[in-house]
Amino acid sequence: MTQSALPADPWLLTPGPLSTARATREAMLHDWGSWDAEFRTLTAGVRGALLAIAHGEASHVCVPVQGSGSFAVEATLGTLIPRSAKTLVLANGAYGKRIAEQLSVMGRACEVLDTGDYLPPEPAEVERRLRADPELGWVCVVHCETSSGILNPLAAIAEVVARCGRELIVDAMSSFAALPLDLRELPAAALIASANKCIEGVPGFGFALIRRERLAASAGQAHSLCLDLHAQWRYFERSGQWRYTPPTHVVAAAARALELYAQEGGQTGRLARYTRNAERLVAGMQALGFRPLLAPRWRSPIIVSFLVPGSARFDFERFYLAIKARGYVIYPGKLTSVDSFRIGVIGQLFDAQIDGVLAAVRSALDELDIADGAPDPAVVAAQPAF
Amino acid sequence: MTQSALPADPWLLTPGPLSTARATREAMLHDWGSWDAEFRTLTAGVRGALLAIAHGEASHVCVPVQGSGSFAVEATLGTLIPRSAKTLVLANGAYGKRIAEQLSVMGRACEVLDTGDYLPPEPAEVERRLRADPELGWVCVVHCETSSGILNPLAAIAEVVARCGRELIVDAMSSFAALPLDLRELPAAALIASANKCIEGVPGFGFALIRRERLAASAGQAHSLCLDLHAQWRYFERSGQWRYTPPTHVVAAAARALELYAQEGGQTGRLARYTRNAERLVAGMQALGFRPLLAPRWRSPIIVSFLVPGSARFDFERFYLAIKARGYVIYPGKLTSVDSFRIGVIGQLFDAQIDGVLAAVRSALDELDIADGAPDPAVVAAQPAF
Ligand SMILES: Cc1ncc(COP(=O)(O)O)c(C=O)c1O
Ligand SMILES: Cc1ncc(COP(=O)(O)O)c(C=O)c1O
Repeated sequence: MTQSALPADPWLLTPGPLSTARATREAMLHDWGSWDAEFRTLTAGVRGALLAIAHGEASHVCVPVQGSGSFAVEATLGTLIPRSAKTLVLANGAYGKRIAEQLSVMGRACEVLDTGDYLPPEPAEVERRLRADPELGWVCVVHCETSSGILNPLAAIAEVVARCGRELIVDAMSSFAALPLDLRELPAAALIASANKCIEGVPGFGFALIRRERLAASAGQAHSLCLDLHAQWRYFERSGQWRYTPPTHVVAAAARALELYAQEGGQTGRLARYTRNAERLVAGMQALGFRPLLAPRWRSPIIVSFLVPGSARFDFERFYLAIKARGYVIYPGKLTSVDSFRIGVIGQLFDAQIDGVLAAVRSALDELDIADGAPDPAVVAAQPAF
Repeated sequence: MTQSALPADPWLLTPGPLSTARATREAMLHDWGSWDAEFRTLTAGVRGALLAIAHGEASHVCVPVQGSGSFAVEATLGTLIPRSAKTLVLANGAYGKRIAEQLSVMGRACEVLDTGDYLPPEPAEVERRLRADPELGWVCVVHCETSSGILNPLAAIAEVVARCGRELIVDAMSSFAALPLDLRELPAAALIASANKCIEGVPGFGFALIRRERLAASAGQAHSLCLDLHAQWRYFERSGQWRYTPPTHVVAAAARALELYAQEGGQTGRLARYTRNAERLVAGMQALGFRPLLAPRWRSPIIVSFLVPGSARFDFERFYLAIKARGYVIYPGKLTSVDSFRIGVIGQLFDAQIDGVLAAVRSALDELDIADGAPDPAVVAAQPAF
C-alpha cells in the first residue's frame, strides 16, 4: 500500500503529537536490531544532532530515555537533584505543576512559586526567594508553558539563578529546536525535550541535555532504575546502545526528522516558518473577532490560546467537532481561570494549513450560528494588563 | 516510496525487537491525535485484546505504560508492592536479577533465590523460603527467562505461592501471547509483557494485566509519578486516554499486529508456528553438530541457546558477522558460566527463514574453517543433568 492510497489524516494543530513529514513516517517501515552496528550509528547520530541544536557539544551530553516527555522530565529531576536538596519550581500552568508533583512523589522537598494560569514568573521574585532560603539549591522552569503557550523569560531567570549560585533545570519540551537555546551562554544544568515536538519526530522517547560534570557526579541518586539517566548515559558511552530496548522505529523516524530539520535551515529556518504560521493564525483569528489570551510579548510561535467567543450559543465540543469535520484538529485549553482553546502552529504546517484551519473555524462559527469570535467583554476586562 | 523499493532488512532472530509484518509497520504511516476519539477507540481495542489473550476479562485490567518492557516491570513492582513489604525474587538470568535491582533502587526489601544461569527454581524450595519467612508477602518470577530461553515452571510456582497465601507477579515479557497463560486459573496479581515480543508489534510500550482489586487498593504506593500504574489506570478509565503522550504510531502498529495475531489463530496458532520454528532450528543445528544448552523439557519455543563450538578457531564476533552478511541477525548469549549464543524463533519467521539461518550458520562455520558446531566435551560433561 503506498501512502497516497491511505485516507487523509486530519491536520494536527496541537502541542504534539504533530503532523509529521511523510518521509519521517516512512523511516518506520524498517525493522532494526537494537544492539546492531547500524542502529548504534543511528543512535549516535541522533544524540549528536540533538546536542548540536543547543550548542552543547563542549559542555553537555545528550541522554535519551524511552517514554514520553514527562518520563524525561522525571528522570532528569530524579537523577540530578540530590535526595536531600530543596528545589524552587516556577509554575504557571500544567507542566510546571507536574514538575512539583513529580518531586513530591519522589519525596524531594520543593517550594512552588505559582503565578497562576498564564502570568510569567518575575526574575526579581525568584531572586528574592533564593536569597530568603539558602537551602533552595535547584530551580526548575518551563520555557514555553504549553498550557497557555506563554514564553517564560528564561534568559533573565537563568541569569538570576546563576548569580545566586544555584542550579537550573529547564523543561524546554515545546520550544527546543524552534526557539534559540544556546548552552554556551545559558547557564543550565539540563534542558529537557522530546522527539515529537519541534524536531517533528513521532512520540516514543524524550531526552535531556545535561552538563557533563553534573551528570558524572550524580551516580546512585535516582529514585528509579529505568529513569536513572546516569546509568543510561554510562550505558550509551560504554556500548553505544540504549539500556533496555529502545523504540527502534521511533528513533529511526527521529533520525530522518533531524535530516529534514537541517534541510529546513535548522533552528532559524524552523522558527521562521512557525513564526509565520503564528502571525498568520493570529491575524486571521483576530479578523474573525477572536482575541488571543496573551499580550504579544508573551506569545510563543508554538501554540496560541484564544478566549472562547462570548456568545451563549458557543459549545466547545460542537466547535471542535465542526472544525475536525473539515480536517483540522485543535486542542482544548487547560486553564482553570478562563475558558480558552489552543491552536498549535508546530509540525508540518504551512500557509495552506493555517488558511485551512481559519476557514474551518469560520464554518464552525456559522454552524453554531455565532456571528464572530468576540469574547465576553467582562472576561476581557478582567484580564490583567501585562 | 513503496515498501518494495526499500533495501531488504536483515531477519532478526532475537528476543526483540523482531522482524514484524509489513502491514504492522504500514500502520505507522498515519499521524494520530492522542486525545482524539479515533485514538481512544484504538487504545481501548488494544487494551481489550491484550486482556483477552490471557482470559483476564473478569478479574484483571490491562494497563499499558510508555517505555520498554523494563519500564512496565518497574512500574508494576512500584505500584503494587507496598513500601514496607518484602519480596522473594526467583532469578535464573538477567531479567530476574533486574527485578531485584529495581526493588533495591526503590528501597523495597527483597530476598533473591538465585539458581544461577539456567537452572529452574524449584517449587519446593520456594515453599520452604515462604514458610521460613512470613514477611515475604510477594513473589516475582520470570516465565520464560530470555537470557537462556528457559521456561520456568510457572504453574507449580504459582500453586505454591497461592497455597502459602502470598501474591505473585510474573514477568511474562517473552512468553505472553505465545505460551498459554490463563488468568482464570493462574493465581497471579500481575502478568507483564510488551508490544514487541510475541504480539509482534514494534517497541515503545509495555503493559501489565493486574488483578482489579489489587490495583484499586494500590493508590499512592508508587515511587514514581510516570511509573504509577494506579494513576495510569484511573486516567484510562476516566478519559479513555493515556496519561502523558502515548507513542501513537507504536500503538497503531500494536492494534494492527493484534489483528494479524487473531488471523493466525491467536495463541494456539502462534504457538504452533513458533514451536515448528524451534524444532526445525534445533534439528538443523544438531545436524551441524551444535548442542542446545538446555534439556528438551526446559526449552522454550521462543529463543534457543546453543553452546559455542569447541574449535579453537571459533570467534563469536566473526561468526555473528558472517551470519549477518547473509541477512540474519542472531544474539550473543548472556550467561556467566558458559559460552553460548542464542537464536530467537519469534517474529515473522517461517520455514524459509529458519532454513536460511541454518544455511548461514553452515557458511559461517566454513568461513571460520570449523568443521562442525560440536562443543568442547569438557563443557558438555560439566553441564548438570536436569
Ligand atoms: C512544556 C511541556 N512539558 C512537558 C510535557 C509532557 O510531555 P509528554 O506529554 O510527552 O509526557 C509537555 C507536553 O506537551 C510540554 O509541552
Ligand atoms: C523476560 C524479559 N523481561 C524483561 C525484558 C526487558 O524488556 P525491555 O528490553 O523491553 O526493557 C526482556 C527483554 O527481552 C525479557 O525478555
